[in-house]
Amino acid sequence: MGLDLGALALRYTGLSVSDHDSIVAINIFVALLCGCIVFGHLLEGNRWVNESTTALLMGLLTGFVILLVTNGVNSRILVFSEDIFFIYLLPPIIFNAGFQVKKKQFFRNFMTIILFGAVGTLISFVIITLGAMGLFSKLDVGPLQLGDYLAIGAIFSATDSVCTLQVLNQDEAPLLYSLVFGEGVVNDATSVVLFNAIQNIDINHFDALVLLQFIGKFLYLFFTSTILGVAAGLLSAYIIKKLCFARHSTDREVAIMILMAYLSYMLSMLLDLSGILTVFFCGIVMSHYTWHNVTESSRVTTKHTFATLSFIAEIFLFLYVGMDALDIEKWKLASSSPKKPIALSAVIMGLVMVGRAAFVFPLSFLSNLSKKESRTKISFKQQVIIWWAGLMRGAVSIALAYNKFTTSGHTAVRVNAIMITSTVIVVLFSTMVFGLLTKPLINLLIPPRPGMAADISSQSFLDPLLGSLLGSDFDVGQVPPQTNLQLLLTMPTRSVHRVWRKFDDSFMRPVFGGRGFVPFVPGSPVERSVQGPSLGTVTEAEDHS
Amino acid sequence: MGLDLGALALRYTGLSVSDHDSIVAINIFVALLCGCIVFGHLLEGNRWVNESTTALLMGLLTGFVILLVTNGVNSRILVFSEDIFFIYLLPPIIFNAGFQVKKKQFFRNFMTIILFGAVGTLISFVIITLGAMGLFSKLDVGPLQLGDYLAIGAIFSATDSVCTLQVLNQDEAPLLYSLVFGEGVVNDATSVVLFNAIQNIDINHFDALVLLQFIGKFLYLFFTSTILGVAAGLLSAYIIKKLCFARHSTDREVAIMILMAYLSYMLSMLLDLSGILTVFFCGIVMSHYTWHNVTESSRVTTKHTFATLSFIAEIFLFLYVGMDALDIEKWKLASSSPKKPIALSAVIMGLVMVGRAAFVFPLSFLSNLSKKESRTKISFKQQVIIWWAGLMRGAVSIALAYNKFTTSGHTAVRVNAIMITSTVIVVLFSTMVFGLLTKPLINLLIPPRPGMAADISSQSFLDPLLGSLLGSDFDVGQVPPQTNLQLLLTMPTRSVHRVWRKFDDSFMRPVFGGRGFVPFVPGSPVERSVQGPSLGTVTEAEDHS
Repeated sequence: MGLDLGALALRYTGLSVSDHDSIVAINIFVALLCGCIVFGHLLEGNRWVNESTTALLMGLLTGFVILLVTNGVNSRILVFSEDIFFIYLLPPIIFNAGFQVKKKQFFRNFMTIILFGAVGTLISFVIITLGAMGLFSKLDVGPLQLGDYLAIGAIFSATDSVCTLQVLNQDEAPLLYSLVFGEGVVNDATSVVLFNAIQNIDINHFDALVLLQFIGKFLYLFFTSTILGVAAGLLSAYIIKKLCFARHSTDREVAIMILMAYLSYMLSMLLDLSGILTVFFCGIVMSHYTWHNVTESSRVTTKHTFATLSFIAEIFLFLYVGMDALDIEKWKLASSSPKKPIALSAVIMGLVMVGRAAFVFPLSFLSNLSKKESRTKISFKQQVIIWWAGLMRGAVSIALAYNKFTTSGHTAVRVNAIMITSTVIVVLFSTMVFGLLTKPLINLLIPPRPGMAADISSQSFLDPLLGSLLGSDFDVGQVPPQTNLQLLLTMPTRSVHRVWRKFDDSFMRPVFGGRGFVPFVPGSPVERSVQGPSLGTVTEAEDHS
Repeated sequence: MGLDLGALALRYTGLSVSDHDSIVAINIFVALLCGCIVFGHLLEGNRWVNESTTALLMGLLTGFVILLVTNGVNSRILVFSEDIFFIYLLPPIIFNAGFQVKKKQFFRNFMTIILFGAVGTLISFVIITLGAMGLFSKLDVGPLQLGDYLAIGAIFSATDSVCTLQVLNQDEAPLLYSLVFGEGVVNDATSVVLFNAIQNIDINHFDALVLLQFIGKFLYLFFTSTILGVAAGLLSAYIIKKLCFARHSTDREVAIMILMAYLSYMLSMLLDLSGILTVFFCGIVMSHYTWHNVTESSRVTTKHTFATLSFIAEIFLFLYVGMDALDIEKWKLASSSPKKPIALSAVIMGLVMVGRAAFVFPLSFLSNLSKKESRTKISFKQQVIIWWAGLMRGAVSIALAYNKFTTSGHTAVRVNAIMITSTVIVVLFSTMVFGLLTKPLINLLIPPRPGMAADISSQSFLDPLLGSLLGSDFDVGQVPPQTNLQLLLTMPTRSVHRVWRKFDDSFMRPVFGGRGFVPFVPGSPVERSVQGPSLGTVTEAEDHS
């Protein structure tokens, strides 16, 4: 009858106009988003809070109000769905991260970032899993199986370093910034890949072969996802370069870039790869090639559009998590002994701190061994900040926990409800308490230079990333003269960089475009007004007329 | 249990990651959108087709392929839902129309536009309704009631003038352009308001009182919707002016503008007003006040972001309509006598042409009476073009037809199936055949000046609208000196304009910002690179290396 696919598709066609409740829900959500931006701005003078905390608090508050209005029956407008998260909210955030990253710093510290982001996450995963297996039984949580413990390890290995990035200054502490930022992205991808790999392996027969399979699967996902993202980025660059949309319309270029990026993410999902990695590398390639092929207005537009979409998605996310935290249904189910989720959360927080310490300090030591100049070594104070930056848990943890422990946002099993409430407590506690302590801690460890302090606090966490597109590149700056052998032994990445740069200049850029390989367009003043909005130079004078 | 709202919301949380089919559907749709942009660009050299036609053809083709793949069972990936249309696709299109409209031309011809868009649509509605009542019975369509005939009148009064706007040149024919454009927007709103008003009145007791109620409701909807949109626009201007986001981040300004515009639309839906009118006036107010209060990069970004979103929504729409046209389910149901929908469509097309002629020529005559200068009068050739421009029927007709004659995109009643298929035929035929004839017809009636011709064909239909934001305004240009009495008698709109302009300068702009009332920002070169992308100046030289 053809109704199968049709009826199925119907379920996913979005909101029904005739349904009053969903229109109310959209209205409340959009109004709250506006409120978050305005309040977040007003509270910015305050050194302790930031946009994420504001959104989280407003979410909690709204949840509380809804709870009162519905007489304690409900606290959420939308049921938390990991699908909204993975299909709509995560792609713009991660793509923007790739698009705005300072590529020079990122690739200079590539090995260290991979070390922290991939190996470190695996170490943290093992420690949290083993710790949970040892300690949870004493708390009488309920019947958890090996698969559950492994999932818990993966869920709580996903860090959320936005709070730290909002405080760190990219110009003052470039090394630290790129390490924390890079680790955050690689960590997101690693946790999700890990989580998916765990869901797919047969845990009952866990032996060396399964472990090997697991590692193989992990590496396969990692590389194919990256290649897909790079391919999508290059394709977009090629299409725009060949078709020369510039002659006609900015809108087409922007549309092609947005659609191709999203397509790469969804294609990756379709092929069961890691969409996060794909879209991240798609963003990097697009900012290296495609972005240079478009008109100047497209450049300004894409840069800010991607940042805005990411900004909205992030606020939405925290609002969502805050509102969901008060979900009475799960609390009732979990609270036969109300202390249990709290005790469990404390244990998890402890494991998170230990698990993170267990790789940050040893891996920093390892990384320092390979470096000659003391300037590029990671000092102990910096190590402490890196450790601290990864203690926060965010929306990825919530999304994975919902995926594992609920069915479409609902659960009726007590142990699952306890796990969800514990995750929510860990996320709220770490984001709020640790988040608030981040600024004082960093100011204590790296005292800000006078004159720069005001700038730091008034910058959005996205600003340091902006305006870096033209000036940054895959190129590595002033390398002191060294023999090739020395280079290969001590700094393999730099040698690789040199080869890459040669390849990029002689083959990639001529084919795909990029800085310096775009036909000159009269009347399009390249590199003008693209160096980022003049945020710091705005006068304090306001029109009071 | 709190499950009511929760379970309800769950239905609307979008796509399920675990559901393979929906990921496939998203992938196909996004890939098709990319394809439409690329092919639309490649086919642009061809004088006959445009982006809409390309999208429509690609939709038909895809539907055909799906039909083959599923062995004639299905042709659509997504069931057409008027909800997707009204909640996601229409708001960006209409908002962008308001945001990019040349306000000077629009308000100069305000009375004529309202005359065509509101009064004209009502005349057309009456004629189509009466004609359908008289002629349909002879075709033995099936049991239709008075409410159905009224709905048919409203459905086929909704014009789609995109094709004509793509061909008309705003600089060569400013009067004609603003009339066709303005009528299109007011017509959209009028048809939807009309349609909603019909759904709500009691038809069984149709007398003078009901008619009066109907007119009252219509006027109420018209004015409250407009006021809501204006209020939302002014609020956004005030917030951005007072908070001075400029000091910090472009992203917040862009986010606030997008969210406030969408909020005004959804709020209008919530209050059962006309979201189209609300968001259109919100766009006008935002471009007059808010847009001048933001940083330069925000200006470039918003201008192109809104245009891009509108562009994507429009392509999506035509793709969607094309794909839905082959829906085998409805064709089977309707085709007990396969000629019936075709005959019906022919009758409807005839009624549409008569209904439009019945108001374009008389109203033009009326409008010309009130004008002194022959320059501002509407010539007969121009009247023919206005008549032709409104013959195409588009997505609004489809959406309204689906709303009236199906339940969630499905129908099992034969007469309803016939009405849907006839609507689809009318839309396809008018868009394709009339659309293709538009360019030759206009070239015949208004021969393009040599040297301008190349520009016309290579411009996207959005371009003429861009770059007009700074130069245009509510101001009316050179008015020949006249006495106040003379002004009031012959040109009431100009007198109103003068009062408005005084009020705007002395009260509105100081409070809400706007051109000339924004604090000077050093380092932010206002009015630089905002005059639209230098589209026409791009060299033909391409990098073939």
